[in-house]
Amino acid sequence: MQREQRQRRERRTVGGIKQLPWRTHRNPYKPIEVLDGEQLERLHDASMRILEEFGIEFLDDESRAFAARHGAEPVAGTQRLRFDRNLVMELIAKAPSSFTLHARNPARNLTFGGNHINFGSVASAPNVSDLDRGRRPGTLDDYNNLLRLVQSLNAVQFIGGYPVEPADVPPATRHLDAHYGVITLTDRIWHPYSLGRERILDAVEMICIARGIGKDQLKREPSLFSIVNSNSPLRLDIPMLRGLTAMAEHGQPVVLTPFTLSGAMAPATIAGALALQNAEALAGLSFIQMINPGCPCVYGGFTSNVDMKTGAPAFGTPEYTRAAMAGGQLARRYKLPYRSSNTCAANAVDAQAAYESEMSLWGAVMGHANLILHGAGWMEGGLVASFEKMVVDAEMIQGMTEFMRPLEINDDTLGLDAIKEVGPGGHFFGSAHTLARYETAFYAPLVSDWRNFETWRLAGAQDTAQRANVIWKQLLNDFVPPPLDPAIDEALKDFVARRKAEGGVSGN
Amino acid sequence: MQREQRQRRERRTVGGIKQLPWRTHRNPYKPIEVLDGEQLERLHDASMRILEEFGIEFLDDESRAFAARHGAEPVAGTQRLRFDRNLVMELIAKAPSSFTLHARNPARNLTFGGNHINFGSVASAPNVSDLDRGRRPGTLDDYNNLLRLVQSLNAVQFIGGYPVEPADVPPATRHLDAHYGVITLTDRIWHPYSLGRERILDAVEMICIARGIGKDQLKREPSLFSIVNSNSPLRLDIPMLRGLTAMAEHGQPVVLTPFTLSGAMAPATIAGALALQNAEALAGLSFIQMINPGCPCVYGGFTSNVDMKTGAPAFGTPEYTRAAMAGGQLARRYKLPYRSSNTCAANAVDAQAAYESEMSLWGAVMGHANLILHGAGWMEGGLVASFEKMVVDAEMIQGMTEFMRPLEINDDTLGLDAIKEVGPGGHFFGSAHTLARYETAFYAPLVSDWRNFETWRLAGAQDTAQRANVIWKQLLNDFVPPPLDPAIDEALKDFVARRKAEGGVSGN
Repeated sequence: MQREQRQRRERRTVGGIKQLPWRTHRNPYKPIEVLDGEQLERLHDASMRILEEFGIEFLDDESRAFAARHGAEPVAGTQRLRFDRNLVMELIAKAPSSFTLHARNPARNLTFGGNHINFGSVASAPNVSDLDRGRRPGTLDDYNNLLRLVQSLNAVQFIGGYPVEPADVPPATRHLDAHYGVITLTDRIWHPYSLGRERILDAVEMICIARGIGKDQLKREPSLFSIVNSNSPLRLDIPMLRGLTAMAEHGQPVVLTPFTLSGAMAPATIAGALALQNAEALAGLSFIQMINPGCPCVYGGFTSNVDMKTGAPAFGTPEYTRAAMAGGQLARRYKLPYRSSNTCAANAVDAQAAYESEMSLWGAVMGHANLILHGAGWMEGGLVASFEKMVVDAEMIQGMTEFMRPLEINDDTLGLDAIKEVGPGGHFFGSAHTLARYETAFYAPLVSDWRNFETWRLAGAQDTAQRANVIWKQLLNDFVPPPLDPAIDEALKDFVARRKAEGGVSGN
Repeated sequence: MQREQRQRRERRTVGGIKQLPWRTHRNPYKPIEVLDGEQLERLHDASMRILEEFGIEFLDDESRAFAARHGAEPVAGTQRLRFDRNLVMELIAKAPSSFTLHARNPARNLTFGGNHINFGSVASAPNVSDLDRGRRPGTLDDYNNLLRLVQSLNAVQFIGGYPVEPADVPPATRHLDAHYGVITLTDRIWHPYSLGRERILDAVEMICIARGIGKDQLKREPSLFSIVNSNSPLRLDIPMLRGLTAMAEHGQPVVLTPFTLSGAMAPATIAGALALQNAEALAGLSFIQMINPGCPCVYGGFTSNVDMKTGAPAFGTPEYTRAAMAGGQLARRYKLPYRSSNTCAANAVDAQAAYESEMSLWGAVMGHANLILHGAGWMEGGLVASFEKMVVDAEMIQGMTEFMRPLEINDDTLGLDAIKEVGPGGHFFGSAHTLARYETAFYAPLVSDWRNFETWRLAGAQDTAQRANVIWKQLLNDFVPPPLDPAIDEALKDFVARRKAEGGVSGN
């Protein structure tokens, strides 16, 4: 008995990184509205004029012809399509306002829409960084380690893309290694890239194997999502149109997110950038509804601005925060799920990284984003996936999800008996009311250090990034892959081997 | 001409720390409401029951007797007073919902109430810290340097108390040195301590000299404010009651802020801590209205929680943020101006310091606080005033104030002509719409570094705290005291000399 207790204690101590349990979240608070009703309508109208008067370039001939057959109007002598506002509103109305994505572990399913809010990992960084090895181009090893870390952090609910580009494996078959890694090292929702049809088709095959289902069931119970960043201004290129088409044909949602960087790919005003964002997003989402009416899809906002002096992109700025909230208002106007991000431009996991991320997170959470991409690990405007930042972001996400838990006000929590018992000048440490809540009263942090200065100094005076470094290494050390039927693993390996033997991706 | 241009360029370069101009701020967005109407009423009712059934200890006999003559009910055999809820509501209704404080420079006047929002400096830290000299007990030199830094930062609109305790000057006359420093090194609103009557009376004399006015005008146009932290639970001590009384007699506002640390001086639930906070705040504010009906005063909220494992106070937690917003709802229920803070528990100016401060600032701003104490420079739960943190906080405050500027949506900002002109795949850098906005388009940061990694690395790879270190030293180097009539300076010096000769403070 004593031995059992000791073992239990040890199990708790060895590698015992404290974190909140896996949960799904809803935002109970009203969104912050940075636009009044009239401003929102002016933005809408400006976007409609962009779609009706200027049009959007569809570089893929087949996609353009398909859209023309479904009501878009080709602009003679160009690759542009004009969209009548009535057509756009009619198409957009077919999209569901909420949908659920099905993970291979059903406990990790996520719903996007309404006041549901989900936080994902960094995606698509070319470089990776940690305090031990510094900043370097990503490899498959880094890719897999970042996935292990995501899987170890309950706060990071889905994988937003490749956390880092595994640049040491060949491009034509890279997606096969990447998909195999994400399916076997995590049990969460993941994201294939809309870079042509073939990568999407391979992802569809692999998720069907992983879930042990067919494509009809996948269509009814979508699993995958894919981000499409239009080539702002006013353009959708061939690979993204073909990838998007393949996703839509299989009933899998695309998140149409224009990269409207104000002062560069968009006007040097947030109003202009939002008008452009809205036009491009609605054009892409309308096209999805032409392909597969009722297909789930997401309105993505990513409007930020450049530093006008240098042209460097800036993130987590006050402009960014307001744009994130305005984007939510636009998405809600069209009854579409909304995507925002946790961004920063910092080069180190320091105060700037944290305050820019917080400005982004508050923009996303109070803008009522349903899908928060780059939720954990994003640095340098997306050029780096940082192991330490991922842990710090998990802490900030935990803070936001706890913030979203409504206060409980009842006789028990008000504790008037305790206040009476303790009396003037007394102390609540020892009161029965306190002792009953000792373990669970308050949020216990992941990386924050609340010790007094002297204790902290004597323990090595580690800053937040250094403490995060200890935590991610502990989590990777303790990592156990989520259960997977060996037969499924075998089937996945066979699929990857066959597709590699075929040479992987051949074209678009 | 060439020489003139060169001089102008030099003037801009030498010491040219970029920051936003001095401005006053209003929060145009609706506050975040973490309590529904029923929860708010339950909290109110619980506080009324505390006041009616348990009562609040008034340790000062004279104050207690005064309150008893004005309707409070002494509890036999104790120093407690019970307050009937009708009496409290009647008294509180006399307090103005908004008032203006008058600085010696009228351009620095501030209004507290409605959607006005004002950010102040760190106050009352025993220690001071900077990267060069480390952490150490405060001195008058540090005190004056922190004041110079506040005066140099437009974002920090008022002085919240002694930014650091000048522990190297004698306690009996310390306030005279402190008041002289704050009047001569800054031109902003400031704060004397409610530690007995005499310090307040000296402050009244000194601000009258500084503004060249009499006490009647000071009463009509208040200048000073003072924080009173009740000795939670349920107690107001002698020095604070006497200081508060002197403030009220002179028509100067007191901010009644219970220090309800959940799990220590308040129940281990945010609901219980808020009920206690509300009871204590309303008791003190009612007392002020007994002394001087209509006297301006402020409802202060400071509810946070301890780490239950160690008893260490925690700040900028999700509990803290919700409590800050709930405090705003309570203050608005009573139509009183509201005070919140920018807090953190961090030991270093790192990611934790920034994310805890952001959680506090969002709680304050979206809780519609009118007075944000400790807005810049607060570290370690109030034990340290940090020069670097003050600069980082100024950046975070600037971010919040820019966030509060409503987006402009009009034909000019929507820029459809620019979107048409640039066309698909084009770039907005060179467009006329962009060039017209080149200098002013976006927020230019104080300490954020948006350079790419390689440029940043080659320039020394300074983190945010190191960059802040450069900035505060530059600001102190460039410091010019605000103009002051030499005759007033002379009169202030005479007053200080006379009061020092008298021995300063003699009792309470």
